[in-house]
Amino acid sequence: MRHLLNTIADQVDTERIRQRLEALALIGRDPRGGITRLGFSAEEQAAMDLVADWLRKIGAEVGFDPCGNLIARYEPTASAVPKVAWAEPVMIGSHLDTVPSGGAYDGAAGVVCAVEITQAVSSSGGSLSLQRPLEVCVFRNEEGARFGGGLFGSRALTGAITVEDLKQMLDDTGTSIYEAMVGSGLNPEAIGSARRERGQVKAYLELHIEQATVLESLSLPVGIVTGIAGPVFLSLELRGEANHAGATPMGLRRDALTAAAEISLACERIAANEAGPNTVGTVGVLVLHPGAANVIPGTVRMTFDIRDSHRESRNRAVDLLCSEIESICARRDIAWQLKTTSSVDPVDPDHGLVNLLAASADHLGVAAHKMVSGAAHDAMIMADIAPVGMVFVPSVEGISHSPREYTSPEDIASGTRVMLGAVLEVACRD
Amino acid sequence: MRHLLNTIADQVDTERIRQRLEALALIGRDPRGGITRLGFSAEEQAAMDLVADWLRKIGAEVGFDPCGNLIARYEPTASAVPKVAWAEPVMIGSHLDTVPSGGAYDGAAGVVCAVEITQAVSSSGGSLSLQRPLEVCVFRNEEGARFGGGLFGSRALTGAITVEDLKQMLDDTGTSIYEAMVGSGLNPEAIGSARRERGQVKAYLELHIEQATVLESLSLPVGIVTGIAGPVFLSLELRGEANHAGATPMGLRRDALTAAAEISLACERIAANEAGPNTVGTVGVLVLHPGAANVIPGTVRMTFDIRDSHRESRNRAVDLLCSEIESICARRDIAWQLKTTSSVDPVDPDHGLVNLLAASADHLGVAAHKMVSGAAHDAMIMADIAPVGMVFVPSVEGISHSPREYTSPEDIASGTRVMLGAVLEVACRD
Repeated sequence: MRHLLNTIADQVDTERIRQRLEALALIGRDPRGGITRLGFSAEEQAAMDLVADWLRKIGAEVGFDPCGNLIARYEPTASAVPKVAWAEPVMIGSHLDTVPSGGAYDGAAGVVCAVEITQAVSSSGGSLSLQRPLEVCVFRNEEGARFGGGLFGSRALTGAITVEDLKQMLDDTGTSIYEAMVGSGLNPEAIGSARRERGQVKAYLELHIEQATVLESLSLPVGIVTGIAGPVFLSLELRGEANHAGATPMGLRRDALTAAAEISLACERIAANEAGPNTVGTVGVLVLHPGAANVIPGTVRMTFDIRDSHRESRNRAVDLLCSEIESICARRDIAWQLKTTSSVDPVDPDHGLVNLLAASADHLGVAAHKMVSGAAHDAMIMADIAPVGMVFVPSVEGISHSPREYTSPEDIASGTRVMLGAVLEVACRD
Repeated sequence: MRHLLNTIADQVDTERIRQRLEALALIGRDPRGGITRLGFSAEEQAAMDLVADWLRKIGAEVGFDPCGNLIARYEPTASAVPKVAWAEPVMIGSHLDTVPSGGAYDGAAGVVCAVEITQAVSSSGGSLSLQRPLEVCVFRNEEGARFGGGLFGSRALTGAITVEDLKQMLDDTGTSIYEAMVGSGLNPEAIGSARRERGQVKAYLELHIEQATVLESLSLPVGIVTGIAGPVFLSLELRGEANHAGATPMGLRRDALTAAAEISLACERIAANEAGPNTVGTVGVLVLHPGAANVIPGTVRMTFDIRDSHRESRNRAVDLLCSEIESICARRDIAWQLKTTSSVDPVDPDHGLVNLLAASADHLGVAAHKMVSGAAHDAMIMADIAPVGMVFVPSVEGISHSPREYTSPEDIASGTRVMLGAVLEVACRD
């Protein structure tokens, strides 16, 4: 395939990518700024309908699966192989829902990339001998901004969501996803039939904006994801003694906040230096009580988000943090209670796909950086049933989930070309 | 005087102190627990009326000054000196208002002490040759729980409050102290006539619960205050960069919370080790934004309460804190803005009164500890116009502003006896 790659990659059109992203950005514009296209909203559906229209014009067969994912199947007409004989598809996907007042690139960049790859393949006519169809999948409700949870479409497609779950996932008004699906003309009772088994998808590939500043800081246009971090969320309650800030000498205090401060710095130090090279640790919530300027804080509630693409490093970070909490609280006479709120295992992208992406970048002369995804994406879920590969493109200033989110169409085109190379390699093989 | 002290000190009656505190504790009982007697409430007035009644029975002349302070003047009838020749009074005071759901000892202990001293002097009949009258002053609205500010009665008595101020001090419903005074039958326009000039009060003495655990930790019944700390309140805003907690490597973060954590620990370290022996430093408020478990905190707003009885130590602590903030934020690339919210100078109790209190304790065989008051009291304000002395009695577990506040009547009696010695020394002199 490699000899054809340059020709086909030339079909990837930066200007068309820009225009498609602009067209999508008009759907769900929020008067408060940015774009609001919540999962299962009319805006998400309208964006999906626009993408469906593009894909139909390219020649794909478009439909919605029972959980509302848009599935567009492209089977090169030039192929001599009869339909029934088609092997498992190469799937390329992402999502079109956003957080409230979100940006125009999170999800949308990956969907436009998938459309562009399909279009490039389609434009190449009979020059390719594809052994497999392409499937573009636009997952429903990835962000989970309305019903919580997130990664809905991929979890449903991999069989991780039951009819009962649909009834339990509620928005702020008490409406369930089950009801929202019925309202969208979907049949929630049929969700089980959306399920793909392991082996039914040859490979899943996703391009996504990085949502951080690693690529920008290296001035590189493309990242190849070698590990997807699994987060552990912990919550900690510290109980010291609220007391008069003027009357209580330093030596007689049981200040829950200074204990929390020491623990926050321990979390930072462990993640930066004492676990793995990719470990990150964050205290994102810290609430103190009573919270008056002249009262020593008596209690603090705080959260930890610890991630690593290597499970051992992550677990070591958690263990080190626990023993720091224990010794800091013992020294300061602070009572503490630590709970694991949730824990998701890290996922490894497929080595073969990582190598194909790297070879494609090399061949095209695109400087690509192997890196870890700290964020969760549909690819993490799809790894349950298929080999997955991910391409990152730079986020300007690392900003995401914001009206200021931006990734250049040039970088998205570079990432798309790199992914195209890997897609062709897989699709043209048995 | 000293030869008579033991005899008169024997008049201080622990059981009567207990009963009077219990009688006061019945006024303003809050169904949510504790006592609620806000400044300028009917409950505060009822408590003042009960104390006025006790003082009248002892033989004092009782009235309310224009700002609502209860003033009871005791002039021993046995004295041969005609009334007009009486010198400046020795004043003993405290307050009867509480915070919402407050305790039965904060303020009340000092008022009951003042009544007890007057009663002991009264019981001694003609055996004393007082050169000065005693004045018991129950200051109105010390806590400031309803209108904010606090220390109202002492500030009004020292001329620090104008008619205009009365109109500006509002409660949550928009009612001003001016209106509350009219409602209480007081004439706010006459507030200026409540003013005492420097020299018109020979000495001001106050017994107060410690509201901390210094005396308890030393197992001592009485503290003699050698310095009243002046607080500096600072507010700091830190601006880093909110970012994805999973996607942002440790080296690319501008985390406002970990900067705040380092600064909180610097504040603690400076107060404990690097300023004066009595310096205290507290971060009582810390609010972060956006405050989600999976988002690196972008901004933090925090407060500092820095106190010391020595102005130089306190200012050194503030200077050290400022330079720590500067270097921590420079290293972490965090923007910061520091404001001084308020600053009150420390006050020194009168050396002569401190010595008289210490001598009295020695004479009575009461183990007394010289210590600093970290909290503000009416005595701090009265220092503007008179030499002041303060006696502390232990707070069990340091608890105050709580229904669980407790000081034993035995300890209050010990403190009262120590103060009695100093009062007699001053009152029997020219």
